[in-house]
Amino acid sequence: MKDGQIAILFDIDGTLVDSVYTHVVAWHEAFCQAGLTVPLWEVHRRVGMDGGLLVDELLALAGVEDSDPKRPELADDMSEGHSRIYRAAAQRSLRVLPGAREVVKRAKTLGFVVVLASSAPQEELELTRGLLDIEEHVDAVTSGEDVDTAKPDATLVKIAIERAGVTPSNAIMVGDATWDAIAATKAGARPVGVLTGGVSACALRDAGASLVFQDCRDLALDLENAVQSLTSDSGGGV
Amino acid sequence: MKDGQIAILFDIDGTLVDSVYTHVVAWHEAFCQAGLTVPLWEVHRRVGMDGGLLVDELLALAGVEDSDPKRPELADDMSEGHSRIYRAAAQRSLRVLPGAREVVKRAKTLGFVVVLASSAPQEELELTRGLLDIEEHVDAVTSGEDVDTAKPDATLVKIAIERAGVTPSNAIMVGDATWDAIAATKAGARPVGVLTGGVSACALRDAGASLVFQDCRDLALDLENAVQSLTSDSGGGV
Repeated sequence: MKDGQIAILFDIDGTLVDSVYTHVVAWHEAFCQAGLTVPLWEVHRRVGMDGGLLVDELLALAGVEDSDPKRPELADDMSEGHSRIYRAAAQRSLRVLPGAREVVKRAKTLGFVVVLASSAPQEELELTRGLLDIEEHVDAVTSGEDVDTAKPDATLVKIAIERAGVTPSNAIMVGDATWDAIAATKAGARPVGVLTGGVSACALRDAGASLVFQDCRDLALDLENAVQSLTSDSGGGV
Repeated sequence: MKDGQIAILFDIDGTLVDSVYTHVVAWHEAFCQAGLTVPLWEVHRRVGMDGGLLVDELLALAGVEDSDPKRPELADDMSEGHSRIYRAAAQRSLRVLPGAREVVKRAKTLGFVVVLASSAPQEELELTRGLLDIEEHVDAVTSGEDVDTAKPDATLVKIAIERAGVTPSNAIMVGDATWDAIAATKAGARPVGVLTGGVSACALRDAGASLVFQDCRDLALDLENAVQSLTSDSGGGV
């Protein structure tokens, strides 16, 4: 290992907890209930980005004009609807992803700082953190309340790096979404991708992830090598 | 246009109708109801492949051994559960994808043979074909009843080509799943990808799709050029 402390920043939704598809269906259902149609793949590829930005883009896709006087109210309704439908489904359907707890414990055992770098709202975080039950291995947490605009904006990753107390180049961001990789790159951190959010390896690589693992179980098995290759000057690639 | 009749074979689920995520959630729910856990992304990437093969692979992922005496009954339960949950949700949630009707009509206007090359069971096909309401523009149809094993096996695409009455190299298969592109390539047809099933363009290209469009609306706008580039000797690429 190189000089200096190393931190691993974990996204939660789609990375540690199998919640991406529940979010997709909840957003879609909120739009349906308002009589608006958005293709589900268009929702899926936006999960993990800032919620306000996601709603703006989906309202535009659904044909709601920027100048429509009902638009601000519709945006609030979509956010509220998603939150309500997601929480109702989450109680029943959320599962911890393979290797999620193991990779966090392994990171601590290897002496890395562990941050849960989510931009989900507090009430959603309570659900996923409660399910994960790994708080004793976690050094810091971020949430949607820490920033005005979440990923792909870099601010949330920068805050996670600050809370970890490491230099950006010693921070590794593990995430399932292209937005994680884009935000991590902007913040000067090293993005690692996992396939558990349903985004292809090639798409994660295109977004900047230099290493892509099937899931956190695979990453846990190779964590020490992965960290070494990412924090050496040359970076790494699979 | 080149010599000889040209056919366009359309996959339905995820290509013409926005049903992939409904299938994903229905399969997942069937496994949950049996007390089995499978990550949702592992379900998603298998939608569009043969149903029997999908169940086999997901049972293995859920930790059910090949030698388990309950396995054949579990496989039947999963198929029945998926079908029941899918149909209940489909009535409410299925939507025609952008440009689906337009691309089929445009194909007929340009003089191409149109085949709906689905491997869905008849009862699911009735739902999606009823919703599409394009039967007057369709020359032939396939279903899961036509084959023992569906995509990525090539048999279903071969049957669709036979029913179209064209040579394989004059058949263009439009699909959202890697399985469509793989099956079409094996059958000697030309695969075209669309993003509406939630599979990335790079993954569709890796599976053999030489042209990838956002959706059928984009394909409809460029259909004549796309067909020309695909059926010329050199093939085509975007």
